[in-house]
Amino acid sequence: MKEKLSNRIKNIQGNSVRKIFSLLTKPEIISFAGGFPTKKTLPLETIKTLANQVLSSSNAHDVLQYGPSEGYVPLKNEIFKFLDKYKAIKDLSLKNMLVISGGQQGIDFMCKCFINPGDIVLVEDPTYLAALQIMKTYEGIPVGVASNEDGLDIVDLEEKIKMYKPKFLYCVPTFSNPSGKSYSLENRKKIIEVINKYELHILEDDPYSLINYSGNMIETLKSLDSKDLVVYITSFSKIIAPSLRCGALVASEELVERFGVAKQTTDVQTSTISQAIVCEFLKNDILENHLDYIIPIYKEKKDKMIEAIKKYMPQGFNFINPEGGLFIWGEFDKGLNINTREHFEKVVTLDVVYLPGDDFYASQGFTNAMRLNFSNASLEEIEKGIKIIGQYFTDVVKNKEN
Amino acid sequence: MKEKLSNRIKNIQGNSVRKIFSLLTKPEIISFAGGFPTKKTLPLETIKTLANQVLSSSNAHDVLQYGPSEGYVPLKNEIFKFLDKYKAIKDLSLKNMLVISGGQQGIDFMCKCFINPGDIVLVEDPTYLAALQIMKTYEGIPVGVASNEDGLDIVDLEEKIKMYKPKFLYCVPTFSNPSGKSYSLENRKKIIEVINKYELHILEDDPYSLINYSGNMIETLKSLDSKDLVVYITSFSKIIAPSLRCGALVASEELVERFGVAKQTTDVQTSTISQAIVCEFLKNDILENHLDYIIPIYKEKKDKMIEAIKKYMPQGFNFINPEGGLFIWGEFDKGLNINTREHFEKVVTLDVVYLPGDDFYASQGFTNAMRLNFSNASLEEIEKGIKIIGQYFTDVVKNKEN
Repeated sequence: MKEKLSNRIKNIQGNSVRKIFSLLTKPEIISFAGGFPTKKTLPLETIKTLANQVLSSSNAHDVLQYGPSEGYVPLKNEIFKFLDKYKAIKDLSLKNMLVISGGQQGIDFMCKCFINPGDIVLVEDPTYLAALQIMKTYEGIPVGVASNEDGLDIVDLEEKIKMYKPKFLYCVPTFSNPSGKSYSLENRKKIIEVINKYELHILEDDPYSLINYSGNMIETLKSLDSKDLVVYITSFSKIIAPSLRCGALVASEELVERFGVAKQTTDVQTSTISQAIVCEFLKNDILENHLDYIIPIYKEKKDKMIEAIKKYMPQGFNFINPEGGLFIWGEFDKGLNINTREHFEKVVTLDVVYLPGDDFYASQGFTNAMRLNFSNASLEEIEKGIKIIGQYFTDVVKNKEN
Repeated sequence: MKEKLSNRIKNIQGNSVRKIFSLLTKPEIISFAGGFPTKKTLPLETIKTLANQVLSSSNAHDVLQYGPSEGYVPLKNEIFKFLDKYKAIKDLSLKNMLVISGGQQGIDFMCKCFINPGDIVLVEDPTYLAALQIMKTYEGIPVGVASNEDGLDIVDLEEKIKMYKPKFLYCVPTFSNPSGKSYSLENRKKIIEVINKYELHILEDDPYSLINYSGNMIETLKSLDSKDLVVYITSFSKIIAPSLRCGALVASEELVERFGVAKQTTDVQTSTISQAIVCEFLKNDILENHLDYIIPIYKEKKDKMIEAIKKYMPQGFNFINPEGGLFIWGEFDKGLNINTREHFEKVVTLDVVYLPGDDFYASQGFTNAMRLNFSNASLEEIEKGIKIIGQYFTDVVKNKEN
């Protein structure tokens, strides 16, 4: 059988996050593994009202019929206002935008349209693990660019562009998955300078920037893009609901036309019911009020996890306190020689799940890190779960010292 | 720019059906081009009720949250009963099924998981044009198998298997798009014999079989499949609503596991709202009653179009009167030397649109055919539109005779 499968799929591993889900059937397990919104941030009543409204409107039949592959035009018009208001992305035409079935479909289309087997794609190291996996389904080779507190290491970026002649650069510049970091404005400007110099495309993945705890807005790379080299994707999964599978891709007309062909040949179009619900959600301050409701909930969880990490994790566990997003990234001092993958299954037996960090690296393969999600667990579970992980690794460190 | 794009996408043309949609902005145009359900067959009130119900249930939050990539388990259980009742496909486990975002995503996954650049795929000639296009996005080469009144030409099929060593055979055996034909049971059994002999996989695309005007049920290839070589896809687009983007794929556990990786790396999962609505629709005879309502509507349209074709089309236009589905396929006698593509734009100026047949061929490239869809236009529009096409081509034939 296997010899009949295509090269692109036969050796790809399933996503390790999705695999871990199968461990989570025991109800007592505390999971810091996924990136799930917590139940009470899901706007059930609003969506129920909006679903009823769009299915009662005078054009309700259109909501059930086939629609344009490029997206439901009333939604695209609302997304223009949304991008202008929240992301400083302006002056778009309908031909600059494709509605996608979740942000991940945008990564898939970028890889499908750019990567030939053996092509290099630059990524921040560490980066979103599903992006690495998608690149491999097109037989692309992700190569990591070093990063620092400001964002990407610009010297390393330029060297790797010269060395590898990559097809594009993929990054999550705002409240990154997994690191929670944001690139500084200065760093963003330098990235744009470098890509302009080499005419390199960027795929800017921006699902988290509205989950913002400091309130400091940072310009998207797309808003700084003068040569139409940035392909920008955003998603409504984290700020409305994941199951709607709705997001947007913004790029040059020429590229959107190609991505439109990719859309036609996969799922034809995104569910119009989802698109119409998101369209209404973006109107009349519903989104703004919803963000005002959910951000303090996530901030409280994040603060609780930071407090618990400080209280329970051993010396030598270094973590980033993020200004937004859903994740805390921590690394054990290399000298401690702790491999989070090796300890993973033992910690699962204690009914807590973290995500080993090694899957997030394209190049470096560091095994001393973990990603902790705080958006799904309750405050009590965060305290309890981090205490268990903290005590476990405190013992590991002690045993190494002895 | 173009030199940066991948080989798989840079030269692919947009789907000609989707391109024709842009011609349809004039409200007076009568379109026989698409495969749209007619407005009154879209179950708006039922879907509104079911949407409200699934968003009011005790597990309503699950309907908004991330779910399994393989599909919403309650829906999969309902689809098992549906496949048993309507398609004679039995004894499936959860691991044999993947929920897909419309039938087309199943074609995409099959191509993604099987085709390496240069690989051959066998198809009936003519076949569904989007399938040909999808094969090309993976740099596969579709090769046509001849067909006759019974179905596939078994001799030609076997010869082409030996000659080309194809990766799989794609076909729409029941009420085919574009031809409207169904393969006989005898022909289906012979196809299974041949594929068993050569251990060739089949992709059986079955979106139309419940739009059945004769009531004669024919076994699916999947129900005759003893060696798990058939990958079966069906869709709820034509029998519930296209915009839900919901269908199902059935295959061996081993293949479903690989298709699941394809699903994870594209749209992660199908909209759970859509899945939950379809799940309720399949329960409690809602679907059965809905089919009892829509089939006579489509049959009346089909009969009207057949009647109009007999009345208005010139001698030498040979057509298939289908027992199901949404399309009538017609071919002008080759001796008339009529190229339907060349006349297309002139007929559009008369405010009627048909689909030229040449796009549906993998190999033969015949230009004397057209596909006529009857599901979307009203009875009056069918009469009026076929009259216009008929008079136009009657003149064409007359002018050739002079």
